[in-house]
Amino acid sequence: MKIKLTLSYDGTNYAGYQVQDNALTVQEVLENALEKLTGEKISTVASGRTDAGVHALGQVVSFETNSTIPPEKFYKALNVYLPDDVKALSSRQVDDSFNARKSAKTKTYTYSLYVSETPNPLKERYSSRIPKSVDFSLVKQGALVLEGEHDFKCMCSTGSSVNTTIRTVYSVKILKTKEDVKIVVKGNGFLYNMVRIMVGTLIQIGLKEKTIDDLKKALNTGDRTLVGKTFPAKGLCLTEVEY
Amino acid sequence: MKIKLTLSYDGTNYAGYQVQDNALTVQEVLENALEKLTGEKISTVASGRTDAGVHALGQVVSFETNSTIPPEKFYKALNVYLPDDVKALSSRQVDDSFNARKSAKTKTYTYSLYVSETPNPLKERYSSRIPKSVDFSLVKQGALVLEGEHDFKCMCSTGSSVNTTIRTVYSVKILKTKEDVKIVVKGNGFLYNMVRIMVGTLIQIGLKEKTIDDLKKALNTGDRTLVGKTFPAKGLCLTEVEY
Repeated sequence: MKIKLTLSYDGTNYAGYQVQDNALTVQEVLENALEKLTGEKISTVASGRTDAGVHALGQVVSFETNSTIPPEKFYKALNVYLPDDVKALSSRQVDDSFNARKSAKTKTYTYSLYVSETPNPLKERYSSRIPKSVDFSLVKQGALVLEGEHDFKCMCSTGSSVNTTIRTVYSVKILKTKEDVKIVVKGNGFLYNMVRIMVGTLIQIGLKEKTIDDLKKALNTGDRTLVGKTFPAKGLCLTEVEY
Repeated sequence: MKIKLTLSYDGTNYAGYQVQDNALTVQEVLENALEKLTGEKISTVASGRTDAGVHALGQVVSFETNSTIPPEKFYKALNVYLPDDVKALSSRQVDDSFNARKSAKTKTYTYSLYVSETPNPLKERYSSRIPKSVDFSLVKQGALVLEGEHDFKCMCSTGSSVNTTIRTVYSVKILKTKEDVKIVVKGNGFLYNMVRIMVGTLIQIGLKEKTIDDLKKALNTGDRTLVGKTFPAKGLCLTEVEY
């Protein structure tokens, strides 16, 4: 049967989702746990890779298994073999045609920030600090520019090979409470480092280090130098994948 | 001059606030940093000790120094010598009579919980999990019983020596958003483990393992067996001290 599994992880101690040589990854830990539970060598497909240090609240993984564990209880049995920083939140049987990567319709990432002159130990693990005060009306203007279908070539780090750099961003929401800020981005897919560069650009617009015009020109020309920095991985979390 | 310092720390890797032999404490790390910064052996007074694993967003510490660093900039200079999981958020000069412990008027603790059948790696570090669904109308009824001046002998772990077990709890607020719950307790002082036992009692009332009558009787009789478990340290955070 084919199983769809929802996974949450603290990415701090992992070299990202996808298996690689000489570095611990979430996929390796997951596939090891699956083998311990089922006795099978199971290959998993995730909705997408997450980079080193990026967290997930709702990563989705699909795989085939001959296990007789009831699919809705599979995640609990699996959690026995998973470490504390990677846990399955739910599981269910899906149609054989389901593929966690290819079937994904939307992905939502949440980037967490806080505005403070000094580092706060209780916030540093899951968010990035902005040391200076930010004009959030400018950040919101920038967010509106990002929404829609664009060629996001200017927001793609080198080292990725994709057929097209055109993506649709359905929404960019800015949620602010006192010193905490969340930027929630929903789209049909994201390029390598795209969300972290989007956030870096929006914040630099709010700091008046970049302008709305820079952003518009970057989207039109694909010029990486016009947009902002790639913000740190630790603030990023894959929150939801819709099918 | 006398300085009042506000301190934030992630208590995960510390054996509590107060210095002890053979275990790393926040006070030791702070006093080492003060010595490196000023060249003086400085004794600090904190608003109160926090237990092993308990966090702080607003611990307050006072001390004497002959340093010529401007008091409002002292915390930034100190942060250079503090580790990532302990940082000073502010500093200012206070009257010589100020004493972080004796001058404290109120303390506020926040206890973070989440309701989920399975552990969530992104929540485990700073909150405790409740595996079953809780009746929060009962929790709120219990909170009202706790407010006011009471003899909290029933909510004090053994091993502490205090003159009186009478304390005034100004408010117990229950803040709930989806699966996350915060219990915010403000009082004129708290006994050893008192907040963690208060939270354990309220949650067990919400789970119908204890009753409001058990709580009332416990407050009247001082009977520890009538109240709930001591909840884990990791969910607790000293959020504010008022003077």
